[in-house]
Amino acid sequence: MQFMQALKDRWSSSNSLVCVGLDPEPAKFPRNFAGDEEGVFAFCRDIADATAQYACAFKPQIAHFAALGAEGALTRLIAHLHAAHPGVPVILDAKRGDIGSTAEQYAREAFDRYAADAVTANPYLGRDSVQPFLDRADRGVVILCRTSNKGAGDLQDLVIDGRPLYQHVAEKVANEWNTHGNCALVVGATWPEQLREVRAIIGDMPILVPGVGAQGGDAEAVVRNAATKDGMGLLVSSSRAILYASSGDDYAEAAARAARELRDTINAARG
Amino acid sequence: MQFMQALKDRWSSSNSLVCVGLDPEPAKFPRNFAGDEEGVFAFCRDIADATAQYACAFKPQIAHFAALGAEGALTRLIAHLHAAHPGVPVILDAKRGDIGSTAEQYAREAFDRYAADAVTANPYLGRDSVQPFLDRADRGVVILCRTSNKGAGDLQDLVIDGRPLYQHVAEKVANEWNTHGNCALVVGATWPEQLREVRAIIGDMPILVPGVGAQGGDAEAVVRNAATKDGMGLLVSSSRAILYASSGDDYAEAAARAARELRDTINAARG
Repeated sequence: MQFMQALKDRWSSSNSLVCVGLDPEPAKFPRNFAGDEEGVFAFCRDIADATAQYACAFKPQIAHFAALGAEGALTRLIAHLHAAHPGVPVILDAKRGDIGSTAEQYAREAFDRYAADAVTANPYLGRDSVQPFLDRADRGVVILCRTSNKGAGDLQDLVIDGRPLYQHVAEKVANEWNTHGNCALVVGATWPEQLREVRAIIGDMPILVPGVGAQGGDAEAVVRNAATKDGMGLLVSSSRAILYASSGDDYAEAAARAARELRDTINAARG
Repeated sequence: MQFMQALKDRWSSSNSLVCVGLDPEPAKFPRNFAGDEEGVFAFCRDIADATAQYACAFKPQIAHFAALGAEGALTRLIAHLHAAHPGVPVILDAKRGDIGSTAEQYAREAFDRYAADAVTANPYLGRDSVQPFLDRADRGVVILCRTSNKGAGDLQDLVIDGRPLYQHVAEKVANEWNTHGNCALVVGATWPEQLREVRAIIGDMPILVPGVGAQGGDAEAVVRNAATKDGMGLLVSSSRAILYASSGDDYAEAAARAARELRDTINAARG
């Protein structure tokens, strides 16, 4: 799979900008699922199968597996996603960042071990720390720009030459790091103004937008401020609001409904 | 173990500022070690046992285990370090950074699953992203400031109010984030001037200094520029130059020699 082309194809074929986040938290699972590797895999699989038709991408978050020692569940889950939902890109949310020789190991972890189509990465260490990811031209590299959390501005808003750090990151990625055309950026739904500013800098580059749902971001404002002219360019990611829409036996139907409603809200705003 | 006190005790009892990095790369192993979980564990264990007397800390780098699917080897290794070398702190080099709810999962990964005494963390997402680590007051949080790689300056040298970003990070950590006294910073040995400037900002806070050995940093310059007045305050980390000092049957003796020589070079500079 060539990530960028697959993403564009999937935006069209699914008519959806919804990215389904897979963040397993056993304490929130319906009663039939144990917190062991089998339970983690089965719950995430059920949610993915129920929501796939409304999804332009899946985004498993690796910390939720690592905290449980459930790497095996993550491996099985991504293999299942590729087999059952071919054409839906899988973004491993890992936010890795290290010096080049170590970043190569992280690239192997994400792309070879887990067979992810894309990975999230942290830009603080500079371009050479991201290069091993960038060099995998068939895979996507989704770089943190303006994150969804309240403290995002502590560093990201510091002003350099009249513009905040996150805008410098957007500019560097768009103008210098994206030589293979496989970059995207993370900008939180909780920051509609910043979404608009980043879109103005980066042209049609995709933006992964976490923070709708549990974190309070407004999906309509996201579309209004950051969709590309053709109404694409976004992966609006929701995790908890889909995964834990119901803790009853209707967990899969409730997840599908939450994903569909988010898709419809977004599509109404796309006009 | 209370990390900060344990580190201070160990600096004194070992008379060493050397931090032994454990970055397994099977292609570089001596011929008797396979690249499987057993080989990875056994090689790292042998290096640790051979170098412990010259070490103020151990620093396993998690990407090197994750790329191999060798989480089991990492678990066994840290358990062995605690059992065989009590009083030598173990820093898990993971450079994690994510929004608060996910950072909590990463804190569980490092401190509960792997029983590390400290973890490295990335500051780009701001204080609330580091808070779940900071809140574990008995563990250490080693925050990236000026990293050892060539591209470190891409973001870290951008100038805000007359001073580069990495100095703002040093100031925030020292004056705002370190409420439990469990913070340290990463500054590369490859940047002696920046080491001096960071030391001037942070008082006696420990600095983890990667980049001697394979990356070319000068241990004497590190001590001259960044030791505290009592000749402490540093974890001078070396990985490849110790681990792969010999690929022959004398790998353990060669590693011990490399660690001892680094200790002696550092101690000569401490005067």
